[in-house]
Amino acid sequence: MLNYRTIIRILGLILITAGIFMWLTIPVTFIFREKDALQFFLSGAITAGVGALAYLPFRKSRMELNRRDGYLIVTGGWILFSLFGTLPFILTRSIPGFTDAFFETMSGFTTTGASILNNIEELSHGVLFWRSLIQWLGGMGIILLTLLILPFLGIGGMQLFSAEVPSPTPDKLHPHVKDTAKRLWLIYLLFTLAETIMLWAGEMGLFDAVCHSLTTMATGGYSTKQASIAYWDSPYIHYVITLFMFLAGTNFTLSYFAMHGKFRKIWANEEFRWYLAFIGGFTLIITLGLFSTSRDGLEPAFRNAIFQVVSILTTTGYATADYLKWAPWLGVLIFILMYFGGSAGSTGGGPKIMRIVIMLKNSTQELKRMIHPNAVILVRLNKMAVEESVVTNVLAFITFYGIIAVVSMAIMSILGNDFETSVGTVAATLGNIGPGIGNVGPAMNFAEIHVLGKWYLSFLMLVGRLELFTVLVIFSPMFWRR
Amino acid sequence: MLNYRTIIRILGLILITAGIFMWLTIPVTFIFREKDALQFFLSGAITAGVGALAYLPFRKSRMELNRRDGYLIVTGGWILFSLFGTLPFILTRSIPGFTDAFFETMSGFTTTGASILNNIEELSHGVLFWRSLIQWLGGMGIILLTLLILPFLGIGGMQLFSAEVPSPTPDKLHPHVKDTAKRLWLIYLLFTLAETIMLWAGEMGLFDAVCHSLTTMATGGYSTKQASIAYWDSPYIHYVITLFMFLAGTNFTLSYFAMHGKFRKIWANEEFRWYLAFIGGFTLIITLGLFSTSRDGLEPAFRNAIFQVVSILTTTGYATADYLKWAPWLGVLIFILMYFGGSAGSTGGGPKIMRIVIMLKNSTQELKRMIHPNAVILVRLNKMAVEESVVTNVLAFITFYGIIAVVSMAIMSILGNDFETSVGTVAATLGNIGPGIGNVGPAMNFAEIHVLGKWYLSFLMLVGRLELFTVLVIFSPMFWRR
Repeated sequence: MLNYRTIIRILGLILITAGIFMWLTIPVTFIFREKDALQFFLSGAITAGVGALAYLPFRKSRMELNRRDGYLIVTGGWILFSLFGTLPFILTRSIPGFTDAFFETMSGFTTTGASILNNIEELSHGVLFWRSLIQWLGGMGIILLTLLILPFLGIGGMQLFSAEVPSPTPDKLHPHVKDTAKRLWLIYLLFTLAETIMLWAGEMGLFDAVCHSLTTMATGGYSTKQASIAYWDSPYIHYVITLFMFLAGTNFTLSYFAMHGKFRKIWANEEFRWYLAFIGGFTLIITLGLFSTSRDGLEPAFRNAIFQVVSILTTTGYATADYLKWAPWLGVLIFILMYFGGSAGSTGGGPKIMRIVIMLKNSTQELKRMIHPNAVILVRLNKMAVEESVVTNVLAFITFYGIIAVVSMAIMSILGNDFETSVGTVAATLGNIGPGIGNVGPAMNFAEIHVLGKWYLSFLMLVGRLELFTVLVIFSPMFWRR
Repeated sequence: MLNYRTIIRILGLILITAGIFMWLTIPVTFIFREKDALQFFLSGAITAGVGALAYLPFRKSRMELNRRDGYLIVTGGWILFSLFGTLPFILTRSIPGFTDAFFETMSGFTTTGASILNNIEELSHGVLFWRSLIQWLGGMGIILLTLLILPFLGIGGMQLFSAEVPSPTPDKLHPHVKDTAKRLWLIYLLFTLAETIMLWAGEMGLFDAVCHSLTTMATGGYSTKQASIAYWDSPYIHYVITLFMFLAGTNFTLSYFAMHGKFRKIWANEEFRWYLAFIGGFTLIITLGLFSTSRDGLEPAFRNAIFQVVSILTTTGYATADYLKWAPWLGVLIFILMYFGGSAGSTGGGPKIMRIVIMLKNSTQELKRMIHPNAVILVRLNKMAVEESVVTNVLAFITFYGIIAVVSMAIMSILGNDFETSVGTVAATLGNIGPGIGNVGPAMNFAEIHVLGKWYLSFLMLVGRLELFTVLVIFSPMFWRR
């Protein structure tokens, strides 16, 4: 029943695209007069070549797609990209080991930002650029996924988002959807350019500005510096990056509205108001906490608070400060933020604001149902009743998320990590954040994790990024039946 | 709309009962020639006196009850009992502070077993007996609650349990329900007696045997020794207590079936099979873990493993070993067990096996729904389809449990606890277990927790014990409207 021709054809196309993007690093090697142009050329040639071998035989076959094909393409696409994306790291010997290279690439392409590198600043500019580009491509993939593929697959909760944009039916893709995808990609590109210019206008060099803009808009969080954004002791840079992390964690459709002056439509979006409220609330408490427990003034306290809150909540993962060195309760608040995630329709990972809001609302409604068992008490979002099946799907998603987190925590502890590190590695990767708590805090990295742990966490990044079901469904025996 | 007369009348009856039970400690003081008989007499007199003052004016008023009255009676009953239950502790000066006395009593009556005592062995026999009796009464209250009141209130998931026994309708209590309550109380009493005899036949004195039997059957976990069950270096005693913890965490209806030889009905109960599977699975892994990481032989490893697994899973909280001194991953497994809980219809707390199973099954069914979006794919339990509203209620319960745990963890960290202690205090009290992780492990206690933390944790014990909704509904503005 699987349409292997279509699947192979699309996966081939993905590899061809990946290969072409690898070649984009070649000019960078020339600009900085570095010697790894050949390695990048080879990486791209191998990737695009394999892609072409897969694509060409089926280029004229009829495009037929059903749900199951969709699951395989999405999951397979992310895995294939992460496999071939290791080539530049391996061929340039910047990450010689396959496990580490795969972890780093998967972490990039899932926009996670967890790294195994202890020596970021020693890497060539080409490699640094490729590392940032992986995240940016991952972000583009996510926009496509949310708009085009998830509604088609019926992955829960996203229906609510896709009600905002023309939704594709299982039979055919609405032509508007392709237009929307192009429009949102354009916004993605514009934001990246705008951030580059604004950072460059500050104290950041052009190369670093480009790389950080690529990884900000993807809510990825890879930096060109080992110290992450803390490297720049510049309030301007911190605030600019905070702004763009905020935009990257916002539903891109709202940015589209903003550009067309439809501000009332933005305010009407309830998820956005909650997104603001969560950021505002946590920033306020953490600012007060930092101000009262450290010697910082109010402005640095506020700046560190809002930066870290937006960075973790949007699942970007940049750092201007090490929250593990704050008063313990402030670290606990940051840890809790790891289970929020960006808005639906953004590049942010995690459970997503919308699901958290539906869960919270359903809890209070459940109390009302206890008092009035015969009344029909629905969850309302954007002033409309949310379908019961959507609520169930959201709750199923969140409980599933919890189950995976708990099982993974056990697995990571069996692989030799202490309690906090086990919890932290899982929260950081399943939520596509990057830094966690314990031994994988913002000042540390994943280099010391057991090799099996690295593979398992790579799997978690994939599962988290693709909204759990897209990946897990493939492990269900029913998927392969008949 | 609230029937205050009926509410006050029933709360009065609860206090009269509590007062009478306080007097049961007087013979104990005589047997051990201790001097606190007067204090116990006074405590009982005050409690029963206040109860009589509340009861008598309304003894002839018509009994009218609606759902809201039910919520108030249950929550109010547990709070009132915990308030007056402090009298013996305060009057005998064994726990002079009111906060500590309330924490200890609430911990007892909710069958939690978290203690603030550093000097258990210095307490008089009367006080030790009262401390155990509180838990036993709490266990009786829980049996009544699950059988009679929760189905009436429609607290989710328990419908599945009450399908096993005649269920009361909102209009009138089915006479069978009262019979069932009496039968199950009889089993509860018989098990308590049987355990007393078996422990006494071992190396335990009669007094300790009685006290531990009272607290085992309630899945309470208060011990007469600071070292808990580890005080007795006797495999026989460890296995006997394991057996009775297991029985206390089993649906009491199944024990009733067992006594009538209906073993097939026991095996047909799916929750029971999962209960066995969880205990078996965790015991196996932890036995192997202990055996390979410590110098213990296989039998002590197995004994410690099964004791701690059953103790935590059933939410009893006795200890024969300090799991925080085991290899870290073994401690993580024990921590995960804190989020399981006993069977529905047992005295165990926590989310309950049945809810965990429904959640797990719904997760796998959700994957199937992803593949076949138009098929009706239900969760099945005991070979029957579980109603969709029950599944939703179970998921709402579990997400609510998670929300409360996360918010509470933030509160406990703000009150000055580190990450593990914040997580540990919440898991231990919300789940009605007793010992947690961090600074409240099995070898420690809650004495050093901030006074506000003690009040907050007392509230959590109540919320956890009364299946969340029963308590939280009272905080909903809708509850008090019109």
